[in-house]
Parts: sequence; structure tokens; C-alpha cells
Amino acid sequence: MKIYFSGSIRGGRQDAQLYQEIISHLKNYGEVLTEHIGQMDLQEDAITDIEIHNQDMAWLIASDVIIADVTVPSLGVGYEIGRGLEMKKPIYCFHRGEKTSAMISGCKEISTYKYETLEEVKGLIDGVFEKFQD
Amino acid sequence: MKIYFSGSIRGGRQDAQLYQEIISHLKNYGEVLTEHIGQMDLQEDAITDIEIHNQDMAWLIASDVIIADVTVPSLGVGYEIGRGLEMKKPIYCFHRGEKTSAMISGCKEISTYKYETLEEVKGLIDGVFEKFQD
Repeated sequence: MKIYFSGSIRGGRQDAQLYQEIISHLKNYGEVLTEHIGQMDLQEDAITDIEIHNQDMAWLIASDVIIADVTVPSLGVGYEIGRGLEMKKPIYCFHRGEKTSAMISGCKEISTYKYETLEEVKGLIDGVFEKFQD
Repeated sequence: MKIYFSGSIRGGRQDAQLYQEIISHLKNYGEVLTEHIGQMDLQEDAITDIEIHNQDMAWLIASDVIIADVTVPSLGVGYEIGRGLEMKKPIYCFHRGEKTSAMISGCKEISTYKYETLEEVKGLIDGVFEKFQD
């Protein structure tokens, strides 16, 4: 199982540590193609935006499932979800707080879950992958 | 010409006044399907997220061109750009500040422009539509 994890980079890195914990949990279920999203000292300067985009798109196309944290507003996360949806990838979104974008929560093809704590999101992820393995 | 203008709603409304001015300028070139994005007192409470999503997607599908302000990080704007790209819509993005998402600026199929002032973005929009009318 190839997992594409999507989280905010330039939109804001306040959740980077949490992404790292989520990625670590996702590894119980498969290979996480975008493990760098959880790196606390993520450096993008060595590669161009075109290289970043094309690498991420190659991983998105190769993935079996998209898991996105949609707490922090992010153009990149929204873009990946939009393109992944058109590619018919299964998409599962998780957010803290009352609301996320209506484009995410209002899309019938996306499963969106609210959470508050790391333990809670881990449990929700377990539920998603249990269904997958049926 | 049907124009889909995309700007941040739940991601942050600090640019709502600017969106209004951009939409007003876009009307020189066609019908702006998403005129509400510039409303200072935008109220979403009367409709569900599913209704918002499906209405916006119907407009996106009907549009001839997508114009997006990608200054404020927004899941919805990214989602609309991602889906629009897969639909082969022409997409033009504008942003203030040094950088926007690498998913936007690194995508060869999207034309991305930096601006600082309202007058500057209006001039860039004129350039886009002059090309369109050739």
C-alpha cells in the first residue's frame, strides 16, 4: 500500500511535529511516499518549484490512497486533493477545529473527519485502513 | 467569456476588498460566475457545505477561464485549481509576496504572476485577456 500524506508546507509549518507523528502511524499500513512533510527542518532551497511539483505529482499518481491533514489552510494540500479526486484516488481528510474548507467537507467523494488529539486521529486512521483491508 | 474567480473564503478574508476590485475589473472581459467572493459581508450559513461545493463545481465546469488570487493560503482555491487543471481549463494565478505554493508556481500548465498593487494586477489581467482575444 502506497500512501500519499498531504500537509501544509508554505501555508504554515505549525503542525509539522503532528504530521511527523501521523506519518509514523501511517507506516503501520504501508509506505509513506511523502515522509519529508513531517521533517521539522524541511529545506526546499536545493530544488526548484518545478522539481517539487513534478516529484509530488509522480508520488500522487503512484499512490493507492491520499491522507490529508486539512487543519492549516494550504494551497498545495487543496491542489493535491483536487487533482487526486480527478484521478479517482480514495481520499481521507482530517482536521481540528469546527470547520475546514467547504470544498473539502462538501465533497461527497471525500471522507472528512474531525479530531482533537493525536490519539484520536490515530484511531480514525486505524478505522480507515481496517475498512481498506476488508 | 465565463470567468471563474477564485479567492480565499474560510482560509482568511483579509483580501476580500481587493477581490472585489479584481472582480470589478474582470467584468470588462466577461461574466464573473463567482462574484460573491468579493462580498464584504459574505454569509455562508444559509446553505450547506455540499450545496456550496456543488454550486462552485458547476460554475468551474461552465467556466472558460480560471483566475485565482493565490496570496492567502486556501484549501478551496488549491482544490479548484487542481480540479480545473485536470479539466484542461486555462488557469492564471496572481500573488503578492515573494512566494506562493510550489504546487502552483511549479506547475508548467499554470501561468503565475507576482504583483504588488491593485493597478499592477489589473494591468497583468489586461495582458492575459488581450492574449485570449487574439
